[in-house]
Amino acid sequence: MKPFTTAPAEAVSALREIALLRAMREWLGVVSPASPQGMGDDCAVLDLGASHAILAKSDGIVYGRHFDDSAKPEAVAAKLLKRNLSDIAAMGGTPKHALVHLVIGRNLSSVWLKEFYTGLAECCQEYGITVAGGGTAQGPDGLFAADLTLLGISGANVLLRAGAEIGDAIFVTGELGGSILGKHLEFTPRLIEGQWLAQQSGVRGVIDISDGLAKDLPEILPPDSDAQIDLAALPISADAKKLEKQDKRPALTHALTDGEDYELLFALNSSVNPKIFAADWKKTFSTKLTKIGKTRAPWSAGQTTTTASPTGAGID
Amino acid sequence: MKPFTTAPAEAVSALREIALLRAMREWLGVVSPASPQGMGDDCAVLDLGASHAILAKSDGIVYGRHFDDSAKPEAVAAKLLKRNLSDIAAMGGTPKHALVHLVIGRNLSSVWLKEFYTGLAECCQEYGITVAGGGTAQGPDGLFAADLTLLGISGANVLLRAGAEIGDAIFVTGELGGSILGKHLEFTPRLIEGQWLAQQSGVRGVIDISDGLAKDLPEILPPDSDAQIDLAALPISADAKKLEKQDKRPALTHALTDGEDYELLFALNSSVNPKIFAADWKKTFSTKLTKIGKTRAPWSAGQTTTTASPTGAGID
Repeated sequence: MKPFTTAPAEAVSALREIALLRAMREWLGVVSPASPQGMGDDCAVLDLGASHAILAKSDGIVYGRHFDDSAKPEAVAAKLLKRNLSDIAAMGGTPKHALVHLVIGRNLSSVWLKEFYTGLAECCQEYGITVAGGGTAQGPDGLFAADLTLLGISGANVLLRAGAEIGDAIFVTGELGGSILGKHLEFTPRLIEGQWLAQQSGVRGVIDISDGLAKDLPEILPPDSDAQIDLAALPISADAKKLEKQDKRPALTHALTDGEDYELLFALNSSVNPKIFAADWKKTFSTKLTKIGKTRAPWSAGQTTTTASPTGAGID
Repeated sequence: MKPFTTAPAEAVSALREIALLRAMREWLGVVSPASPQGMGDDCAVLDLGASHAILAKSDGIVYGRHFDDSAKPEAVAAKLLKRNLSDIAAMGGTPKHALVHLVIGRNLSSVWLKEFYTGLAECCQEYGITVAGGGTAQGPDGLFAADLTLLGISGANVLLRAGAEIGDAIFVTGELGGSILGKHLEFTPRLIEGQWLAQQSGVRGVIDISDGLAKDLPEILPPDSDAQIDLAALPISADAKKLEKQDKRPALTHALTDGEDYELLFALNSSVNPKIFAADWKKTFSTKLTKIGKTRAPWSAGQTTTTASPTGAGID
């Protein structure tokens, strides 16, 4: 059977990403468990007989889509690893081992590939990760696609996307928007922050912002709820403001929708004083932390609402 | 930096597969541990705090290289999974969880993809595997590349490629050669056989035959040794004989070099009586088992010799 079609309605491009992932999970049926054992959280949480859960995530990059000729190969390799590290961070875990699989054209440069691998090695060493497996398969000329599976271990608590309740405060680390100007390659996964969050009581509903706040926020809202976001409080990056000058789209829009922020977004139970929590954070990290709003019952009045729409994730 | 080159000497195609994998490991340096913790065995053997080792393997398939229009999508999915299962089998392990990452062109047919995923589900169910993660990235039109990472657990003993000694008997399961006529898609990974082998004393130096006996045998030979193979005893498949009639190349050559046999090749310590061992096997399995020769000190006389050349693996 031919895998490709000339009928536009039959092509996967007719499906939106979320619809495609939903379809995959539906097609997989019983072998696709609910998150966190299956797809739908930042990492899968696996019981493999260890005292703590094993965290697993697989994500990739493709030439022309996640990087271009302007990127240094070592930065491409670091991005491949750090995209996955950011997901381990969002579970409060510690990364351990990576497996890297490439699909590459015969005209890929060995010089480029060497810098990619030495860059990967440097980044792995920085985060205490070993490369436990890998391979390559030949693809069409002009293709460089890399997939990295990252395995890690959780602490006693695993940070899940689920668990937030109505009335929780919503926090975000760092600043948002404008990642295309550089941060999409040069970012620091919030690993130590995630590990710290996993040790605090009241933290639940955690995700890393890869698709943009507007798209990722609904993932952590409780069912039948929405969020009241204080737009004036949003930590908008200097690059988002720079982009506004270039493309005349508001910096706020960039902060909400650009994606590839790789910051942590999380909810804090209303039983915890958010000011004391923020003060504890500030004593521990130089990374910025901003309270941007709260979860609430739907249909109430407020400055901005985003509707909760539980979706799968892990696709891009 | 441009990833691709027009200078033939600079292109990865100038490197042979083994040379490419060696280069990768060299570039990775200290973050690439020796096997079995790193690359170089059928699976990586990971210590993630469990009572038994975690086995991990990542391998993929690409349209036009591992399958074509004549293959049913469900058979393609089964092949993707079973290639990895065969590696778990060669470690004597039990498969548990899979993560699947696709790079696909926009013109991929949703109908084809649905049959691929339902086929994957069926095969996962047959082997008790859940799909714990996955995603897709967009690639050029006409591309379907899938990478699957399989996680499993070992029993008390892990079957490694290393460990054979001079004087060991060499056994192979099933029949070899001619896989292109169908077996490359329709094969049974030797999981229960591998699990049984892991419980027998004297079994060590185990590999699954993916590149062909001639290429995979050196992987299990002890250092500074070679193998004396009784070519008349080799279990040559009916498909290898069929191919001989078609292409006039000897069936024996097909059996030695075709690859994609997905049979287990292993050494048995000389302290174990191979006849009793083979009789025990026969009581347990209907799968054929053949003693095809033995390991020996190099330079001794014999019907056929293959030189031990320790190489990395996991590439194709």
